[in-house]
Amino acid sequence: MTTSSSQPTARPNLVGTLIDEDRLWQRHEDLGAIGGTAKGGVNRQALTGEEVEARALIASWAEGLGFSLAVDPIGNMFIRREGTDPDAAPVVAGSHIDTQPTGGKYDGAYGVLAAFEVLEALERNGVKTRRPLEVGIWMNEEGSRFQPGCVGSGVFTGKKDLEPMLDMQDRAGISVREALKPVLGATPTATQRPLNTPIHAYLEAHIEQGPRLETEGLQIGVVTSIQGMRRFEIDIVGEEAHAGTTPRATRKDALSAAVRIITALEELMHDPDDVVRFTVGRMEVSPGSPNVVPGHVHFSIDFRHPDMAVLKERGDAVERIAQEKGAPCPVTVKGFGTNPPVHFPPEIVDIVRRGAERLDLPSMDMPSGAGHDAGLISAVAPVGMVFVPCERGISHNELERASAADLAAGTRVLAEAMVELANR
Amino acid sequence: MTTSSSQPTARPNLVGTLIDEDRLWQRHEDLGAIGGTAKGGVNRQALTGEEVEARALIASWAEGLGFSLAVDPIGNMFIRREGTDPDAAPVVAGSHIDTQPTGGKYDGAYGVLAAFEVLEALERNGVKTRRPLEVGIWMNEEGSRFQPGCVGSGVFTGKKDLEPMLDMQDRAGISVREALKPVLGATPTATQRPLNTPIHAYLEAHIEQGPRLETEGLQIGVVTSIQGMRRFEIDIVGEEAHAGTTPRATRKDALSAAVRIITALEELMHDPDDVVRFTVGRMEVSPGSPNVVPGHVHFSIDFRHPDMAVLKERGDAVERIAQEKGAPCPVTVKGFGTNPPVHFPPEIVDIVRRGAERLDLPSMDMPSGAGHDAGLISAVAPVGMVFVPCERGISHNELERASAADLAAGTRVLAEAMVELANR
Repeated sequence: MTTSSSQPTARPNLVGTLIDEDRLWQRHEDLGAIGGTAKGGVNRQALTGEEVEARALIASWAEGLGFSLAVDPIGNMFIRREGTDPDAAPVVAGSHIDTQPTGGKYDGAYGVLAAFEVLEALERNGVKTRRPLEVGIWMNEEGSRFQPGCVGSGVFTGKKDLEPMLDMQDRAGISVREALKPVLGATPTATQRPLNTPIHAYLEAHIEQGPRLETEGLQIGVVTSIQGMRRFEIDIVGEEAHAGTTPRATRKDALSAAVRIITALEELMHDPDDVVRFTVGRMEVSPGSPNVVPGHVHFSIDFRHPDMAVLKERGDAVERIAQEKGAPCPVTVKGFGTNPPVHFPPEIVDIVRRGAERLDLPSMDMPSGAGHDAGLISAVAPVGMVFVPCERGISHNELERASAADLAAGTRVLAEAMVELANR
Repeated sequence: MTTSSSQPTARPNLVGTLIDEDRLWQRHEDLGAIGGTAKGGVNRQALTGEEVEARALIASWAEGLGFSLAVDPIGNMFIRREGTDPDAAPVVAGSHIDTQPTGGKYDGAYGVLAAFEVLEALERNGVKTRRPLEVGIWMNEEGSRFQPGCVGSGVFTGKKDLEPMLDMQDRAGISVREALKPVLGATPTATQRPLNTPIHAYLEAHIEQGPRLETEGLQIGVVTSIQGMRRFEIDIVGEEAHAGTTPRATRKDALSAAVRIITALEELMHDPDDVVRFTVGRMEVSPGSPNVVPGHVHFSIDFRHPDMAVLKERGDAVERIAQEKGAPCPVTVKGFGTNPPVHFPPEIVDIVRRGAERLDLPSMDMPSGAGHDAGLISAVAPVGMVFVPCERGISHNELERASAADLAAGTRVLAEAMVELANR
């Protein structure tokens, strides 16, 4: 991990220099304590008590600085610092505060806290902007409690429909609609805001979640694109039977079928260049008794690639292979559509790159391996992203780590870019 | 399923003719209502509230007939009808009343209710026996809440040690010791009985849980042996990582490893004669999020065969194969020892067969594919078993079905054998 100082050496009048590294670090500690796990990670899934508590904490910080709050019908939360032009569309920056069940302190939280730090630093230093600046906190980005992910940003832009997303249930049968109720209670001063309000530009700071910046010894990644993604859920129906008496010839073993399917899909996804990302992250086997042949298996597929043609060709083969290899068990394949690769507008990429240059922070252009809310927001506004290193590229893991200096460096670049956009 | 009448056509003075088919059927309905599922099955796992309620119900029936109750330190329950010789060791018949999470009404329950029906029929008809007759209800046969199974019969005979079995925990961390507390409360009149009290002979009636009797059109299987069994638990440690950013080359994907291991074990267990029984019935994948590479997988292996040499050779290869195919993920293999094949004493097999002959019920000799408490009890007493058909051989399944006539036929044979043994 890069540990060299991120203090800019040139042009001390830049807004990026107003960023307070210690305050930013402490905000991560305070937010990370909510849902904090024994292993130093965070379990703060969407709309749980922990996530609601985290919203209340951030809201209290915002109110202390005189910022206003708004919440939209899918539970996205916005913190607003007014600009000098009351009619101008805001520059929004943010990310999400929900985590994986065994997630870390920085994935998502960093993008929210970096954006908040920009607003706070400008406020405390009396720096005005023409356009309003907003922190956007998008609901259920991770997709671990409710599938799919990026629900808040997807509904905001109209890419996902509101009603089916409100009806979506977690494994305990609790709907988003139900789980949203405590959210408004946690932020009583928030106004209600409709979906898809105008955004002049959207920026997102994020840990890289990969190893490249660390390997290159750089603090700043200027993100140029997000690879595309397809999600599937596979259901295999077998027949429960006694493990001691049922001959193999008459079994319908749903787990054996799943093993055959995954083996064949791993062959389909084989890639000597190691660019294809294919993951079965969730699998449920029932009834789950050692001496009962499994009667049902459910598993997820996460498939990503930067090239739309590859996503289409290999993704389209999933259903046929699953049904072929699953026989004699009937197999149902549910696809969740395709998130196509997103290429960020060169204009915004340039603004981010120039911000780093002004601050004398060496950077590299890079694609994003992970999906982000920015990918969804790109449908309604020009977007850009700033990456900072994380230790060994580890993320979606309680061991996720980033340094205070790197987090501050990325926030300085974010401040430069936000203010440049807000004064257009 | 055999549906022809089981009323014996000859020798009306036989004790087997005292069995009341309707009463026996009603007992199954009453017991099956406790833990009954919407699909007509039963979920009544060991020492749950449902199992305790079932014990209380059976105890109330026993008390109504003047039988005495006893419970031993591992929670086995005994219902006793005295004989004319107070010093003689009892003839015991029984089975278990715990079920799989999605089990049926007959697996286990039939052995208990058939034995109870024998005691009740003799009592109501004033038939005395020299030896006492007992119904044995063995604790946690299924091994679905607590692993391994056959805990009650195993501890009774000394094959399993009491203290570690009392310390054994379910998935919620509740120990057998803890879960046993409500059991004594449910049967306040029961005396406490030590383990391994003398048994003159043990019999167990059971549904076949396989298709052979139905195929042959027979009501009675005379069981000659139980095939052997080995159980394993496999733990695979991977590394949680982001599904979108982590290249395959650097992943430690615990689920991919599990798929490779199971594929190789299925090859190892390949058997053109279809005698090997190999089942992975339980698998848990964590953290279980679609966009996180799995960091841990746990699965069970149930491996059975009538031949000790096959059990040894193929079972001994499991650990090496799991570790080889699991790489780079470290794999731990825990074996639970071997239940060797059990051959029933010809003397008891003859007594069961002759009982069927006296009742003019055609029978066939057969091995048992499933393990039973009888296999454990064989270490301390001569044992025998009676099988009756179940529909399509389906068991460990909510669709498990047996006919009233077949259940009564098996109980008649059980009565003949129990009384013959009790008058020796």
